[in-house]
Amino acid sequence: MTATLLSPSRRVRRTPFSHGVEAAGVTAYTVYNHTLLPTVFESVEADYRHLKTHVQVWDVSCERQVQVKGPDARRMIQFLTPRDLSKLTPQKCMYIPVVDQYGGMLNDPVLLEVAADTFWISIADGDFLQWALAVAACKGFDVDVSEPDVSPLGIQGPMADELAARVFGDGVRDLRFFGCGRFAFDGVPMLIARSGYSKQGGFEIYVEDSALGMPLWEALFAAGDDLGVRAGGPNLIERVEGGLLSYGNDMTRENSPLECGLGKYVSDSQLETCFGGRALREERAAGSRQMIRAISIEGDLPGCDRVWPLFAGGACVGQVTSATWSPDFGTNVAIGMVAREYWDAGAILEVETHEGMRRATVEAAFWI
Amino acid sequence: MTATLLSPSRRVRRTPFSHGVEAAGVTAYTVYNHTLLPTVFESVEADYRHLKTHVQVWDVSCERQVQVKGPDARRMIQFLTPRDLSKLTPQKCMYIPVVDQYGGMLNDPVLLEVAADTFWISIADGDFLQWALAVAACKGFDVDVSEPDVSPLGIQGPMADELAARVFGDGVRDLRFFGCGRFAFDGVPMLIARSGYSKQGGFEIYVEDSALGMPLWEALFAAGDDLGVRAGGPNLIERVEGGLLSYGNDMTRENSPLECGLGKYVSDSQLETCFGGRALREERAAGSRQMIRAISIEGDLPGCDRVWPLFAGGACVGQVTSATWSPDFGTNVAIGMVAREYWDAGAILEVETHEGMRRATVEAAFWI
Repeated sequence: MTATLLSPSRRVRRTPFSHGVEAAGVTAYTVYNHTLLPTVFESVEADYRHLKTHVQVWDVSCERQVQVKGPDARRMIQFLTPRDLSKLTPQKCMYIPVVDQYGGMLNDPVLLEVAADTFWISIADGDFLQWALAVAACKGFDVDVSEPDVSPLGIQGPMADELAARVFGDGVRDLRFFGCGRFAFDGVPMLIARSGYSKQGGFEIYVEDSALGMPLWEALFAAGDDLGVRAGGPNLIERVEGGLLSYGNDMTRENSPLECGLGKYVSDSQLETCFGGRALREERAAGSRQMIRAISIEGDLPGCDRVWPLFAGGACVGQVTSATWSPDFGTNVAIGMVAREYWDAGAILEVETHEGMRRATVEAAFWI
Repeated sequence: MTATLLSPSRRVRRTPFSHGVEAAGVTAYTVYNHTLLPTVFESVEADYRHLKTHVQVWDVSCERQVQVKGPDARRMIQFLTPRDLSKLTPQKCMYIPVVDQYGGMLNDPVLLEVAADTFWISIADGDFLQWALAVAACKGFDVDVSEPDVSPLGIQGPMADELAARVFGDGVRDLRFFGCGRFAFDGVPMLIARSGYSKQGGFEIYVEDSALGMPLWEALFAAGDDLGVRAGGPNLIERVEGGLLSYGNDMTRENSPLECGLGKYVSDSQLETCFGGRALREERAAGSRQMIRAISIEGDLPGCDRVWPLFAGGACVGQVTSATWSPDFGTNVAIGMVAREYWDAGAILEVETHEGMRRATVEAAFWI
């Protein structure tokens, strides 16, 4: 794909931070949950280098919340996911696969318990709101389902703790991975989790009122000036090195969570009762036919904007769905699905990019 | 919003026609149903002039199909929409609002009966597939719900009949508005409807196999060379002049179909039994509080990439959600929702654009 512009319209929603993003010189977006997601400021590689050495503020408002509120909220959400939620507390959020009746991934959100009988499902790209609304109505759960005015803002990078502590106080340093709590900004207690879509560490702040967006944005930039804080966003190179899967890229409704390497979030105890549990039980018993793998690729690569089939001996044995050059690891890093017979580390395959065949190797693990 | 690039990724899906679109010099896209939708080739205004005088081929693959197939398919779809489907036949497609339990618009698709017990819901932007999957499973309808390999291609403009007839035969000229039938291309019978997202007239071809996409694209361009055929797409100016609503822009889940002026597609006979019927019944009895209106606006306008509130005497009385300069009508044309007290033609309002207040007038009708 050659460089093309993104047409503006109300349908592609701006966010509470869009003014800041524009002032920071955004050069590219993607569209995610009908919302602008900034992807590039200086360049993908310059943003990557900065992310791995400094701290960035990310407008990830596109992670919309599906709020489920009411006496049946917990019971309904446990029905929606194969992950056992008994350890969910207001102090700890959880990554939960959600699947359809065929066991296919509908989304891979983070679940937060934000108040009594009130939960937020912080979603990847896809209108899971429609799923939740329909299940609530058809099954008669006593809940309200809505999309509240909540816009996550990320602080990511090795200096994330320092920057967050300057604005929210040192208490935020004590959060453990996927721990969450409330910390005051300008007298307003904000829900903050130690989470985010990078391997560099950091936080996501669930800003519950659009009007607070730009004041918080500006406070973070003012506090982080000497830290070299910049605006950023999910970075292709960094996320592929780290093996962070992207719903819609590396997994779709065609895939089960087991195939996606998310088996630890599929609890045997839930498979009798949860949505799609039967299909997952059968797959677990039989073994998955394919699995997500780290893959290195030789040679020059075009941008991976479509599925690239993987071949072994002329037969299609999988596909690559994200790929990019990694400056730090000196190889092309990629994420793909590989058939069982070929998924062991060291397997040599061929990948058909849209600019020709390249040699690919199944790796034992992601790069970081 | 300043001009920014769209980042490529597999998640933003290419289409069977993407090669043709790129070769034709696409300069801007939007993202619609996780799919690339070309929006600009030469310029919005040049594309508009060409659309109104010649014929264009549109890659509208982003109109994805939700296929509902099985013994309960018709019964389930009748449950999903307040429109009486008794007149649906394989020879006539229907525009159907679909609403949630609160009566809010979930989508405004076109419904086609494509075979025995097989229907396509050709959707606007939004994962209505998730809604349909959930309803099917939770209510126990005996159906399969899927997204098939079907990619609509539009032929739009005053010369659309001529171009379509050259490729599919003169029979296609006999289709009436929203009529549909099968016409052969290269020996393959293709489903064609007289429909499309412009007021210039034309057809949509539901290409049922991605491999046929580029051969059809090329055949249309070869056949239409002397007609001045070009690649195009839904055009902001033309659609606002014509009052073609855009889901996500002019209506969202916050709106009922009655507010959207779609009351003629809400059948009293269905409101006892269909999803969301109760809310619609109550609204119809009480009268809608606001309604879609054509609105003209004075002065220079920025691009309408966000909601612009409408004011009367300092009070907010509605909003504009699409607006643009119309060269043919010599005014800024707009679509908005206006509160009952102000929705009569001639009402003078103020609209707050993000570059200041402008004088707005409620019009009696759209411009074409």
